[in-house]
Amino acid sequence: MTLPNHGSANPPAGPLAGLQVVELGSFVAIPSAGLALRQAGARVIRVDPVGGAPDVRRWPLGRDGRSLYWAGLNRGKESVELDLASAAGQAALRELVCAGGAGGGILLTNLAAKAWLADDLLRRDRPDLIYVQVTGRADGGPAVDYTVNAGSGLAYATGPEDGMGPVNQALPAWDLLAGCHAAFAVLAAARHRAATGAGTFCRLPLEDVALSTLTTLGYLPEAQLTGTSRPPQGNQLYGTFGAAMPLADGSQVMIVALTGRQWRSLLEVTGTAAVVAALETALEADFSDEGQRYRHRKVLLAVMQPWFAARSAEEAAGALRGSHVLWSPFRRLAEVAADLTAAGDGGAVWPAEETGFGLNLVTEGPASRDSHRPPLTSVPRLGEHTESVLAELTADRTRPT
Amino acid sequence: MTLPNHGSANPPAGPLAGLQVVELGSFVAIPSAGLALRQAGARVIRVDPVGGAPDVRRWPLGRDGRSLYWAGLNRGKESVELDLASAAGQAALRELVCAGGAGGGILLTNLAAKAWLADDLLRRDRPDLIYVQVTGRADGGPAVDYTVNAGSGLAYATGPEDGMGPVNQALPAWDLLAGCHAAFAVLAAARHRAATGAGTFCRLPLEDVALSTLTTLGYLPEAQLTGTSRPPQGNQLYGTFGAAMPLADGSQVMIVALTGRQWRSLLEVTGTAAVVAALETALEADFSDEGQRYRHRKVLLAVMQPWFAARSAEEAAGALRGSHVLWSPFRRLAEVAADLTAAGDGGAVWPAEETGFGLNLVTEGPASRDSHRPPLTSVPRLGEHTESVLAELTADRTRPT
Repeated sequence: MTLPNHGSANPPAGPLAGLQVVELGSFVAIPSAGLALRQAGARVIRVDPVGGAPDVRRWPLGRDGRSLYWAGLNRGKESVELDLASAAGQAALRELVCAGGAGGGILLTNLAAKAWLADDLLRRDRPDLIYVQVTGRADGGPAVDYTVNAGSGLAYATGPEDGMGPVNQALPAWDLLAGCHAAFAVLAAARHRAATGAGTFCRLPLEDVALSTLTTLGYLPEAQLTGTSRPPQGNQLYGTFGAAMPLADGSQVMIVALTGRQWRSLLEVTGTAAVVAALETALEADFSDEGQRYRHRKVLLAVMQPWFAARSAEEAAGALRGSHVLWSPFRRLAEVAADLTAAGDGGAVWPAEETGFGLNLVTEGPASRDSHRPPLTSVPRLGEHTESVLAELTADRTRPT
Repeated sequence: MTLPNHGSANPPAGPLAGLQVVELGSFVAIPSAGLALRQAGARVIRVDPVGGAPDVRRWPLGRDGRSLYWAGLNRGKESVELDLASAAGQAALRELVCAGGAGGGILLTNLAAKAWLADDLLRRDRPDLIYVQVTGRADGGPAVDYTVNAGSGLAYATGPEDGMGPVNQALPAWDLLAGCHAAFAVLAAARHRAATGAGTFCRLPLEDVALSTLTTLGYLPEAQLTGTSRPPQGNQLYGTFGAAMPLADGSQVMIVALTGRQWRSLLEVTGTAAVVAALETALEADFSDEGQRYRHRKVLLAVMQPWFAARSAEEAAGALRGSHVLWSPFRRLAEVAADLTAAGDGGAVWPAEETGFGLNLVTEGPASRDSHRPPLTSVPRLGEHTESVLAELTADRTRPT
């Protein structure tokens, strides 16, 4: 489906119009929480120490040396620099947090254990404060996605089947999930406040996001039950049928058959129904059960491999397109970027010409509402809104930096 | 921090008390969206076709053969079975969605293109409907986490540095993120409805969650800018200093130094400050810049490796504990599960004795609010609440299954 990304003179205001959030935190979790709120229409003020937080020059860098990472995570926000080492800067921050009327009084931060940012200190001025704190470890100690992932057990369940060592995820998935949970927690608390007048102090340790998620999905309960650790599955799916199949041209295609319909369709496309039926009888297996497809995956994959190995990516795609099989070619980032650039406007990611960045791939998030996407907002310069925001929202209109 | 998980006779109601959500979807994205809403206090009714959706026996399985995966994703929900192939079952589903008064009229689903579930059909009975649809591909076609990840470009940026092929994530990170975005979208739409009376149709393709996230973090803009694909980094961090270091006992420890303070602390702990300073001069580098630490990571890691290779996990931990370095041992799932079981009550994951599951690791999500966690809820049996929910919420009190 193609939706207009811009060109609409009066885009509908986002659903969170009227909400005002102050964000104090760097890297992914807190900035992505603020970003989700901003993309849904909230006003988000990101506060940084003078010169920027440690993420201000984080790779990758754009044409002009500015961080594409910082740009992506802070698009559409107002940027305020404060001297957070000084009492005046700390007081200005607290004033910003408490400002904003009924839709304000919201703080997102990953700072913990700072007396000048203590919940009860802020709550004195704003009893209905919504304070969402993302910490690292559950005990309050520092941690980042990569250390949390190492400690979670997941890295030893990732990568090649014969792999001996842990394999990290390239995606900071725990940070992103923590950020989304934090944005959700802001809205849950705002609903509670609207109903009762009460504020909320919500704590979300990154470590608990990982442990709780690995419990919900069964990884940790299974390990507790069996006393063993699930080994890495390579590119196969655990407990069902899915694998990366090499093709004649050296590329690979991911195929997945979760349901009976998808499985039967895979047998049909690859012409392996008769061989697989004979195997089923000989092995006394029931391949309508995905667990049994998983147990016998090696022989099943071996039976199918020749069909894939004899076909180019184009030929395999041609056959799979008409089937019920879930499939996708494995693509490289540059191919995806080129395709998105060629596709132009209309998707969740599109190419835009921007001052300082040149032609750039941009996004306003994955959601569309009532067939509209949010219009493209611009990337702030660090500190660009310091004076205007302080003048608007604090009593002392001198710049305390 | 240790919080009570149970024993509180009158736990505070969650912030979303009064919200009623109907969920129709299987596997991870939609069930995890419903779970987040439920853990924050909403009433969530999961509807399945008779006999259950295709995820009902998904591995891993518990002691009694029930799916630990299904249990984790549906804990605390009400389970309703309907014959969704029949007009009566479809009508009952629509009636459930539209019920619930001011806090009801909310549907989370991954079904698309079903005429009987069309947005405008439901909206006729409930103009303020909140309809959140998670589809697979952006064009509406089917896709799952593993095919979306293959197509996103990320798998070719994951795994060993010298790896030739794509490496999938073991975590269905896109599903989890899509679920959290969907839960967020429900609350954003509920806020909009409270302010304006208007409903929302929100569409969230799994593919767009991946592409938008990889754009926000700079992966795709970088590939567009350079025309090349970021190669896999092994267990190192891109653009900064972080790596998995092998220890004397065969285990590994993840170390990360993002800031100047963390970097200087790492040099101090490992006793490499003088060698690194000499290198800095000889290489005409400036290691206070994380980008330069990344460029020269091979030689820097080689300088530090002997310190780690000479120490056991315990010895390394003893030295790192007092430092500013971010670090964690790589653990296996069974170690993590054993530690959580031994730790008992108080964390986000704890052991509980449950009918049908025995001693089991359980969670009510990562968040605590005002120093309370939600109390443990129970796992429904498939269809356990069919009669009670239909009797309460539909006009025709006969069971249409």
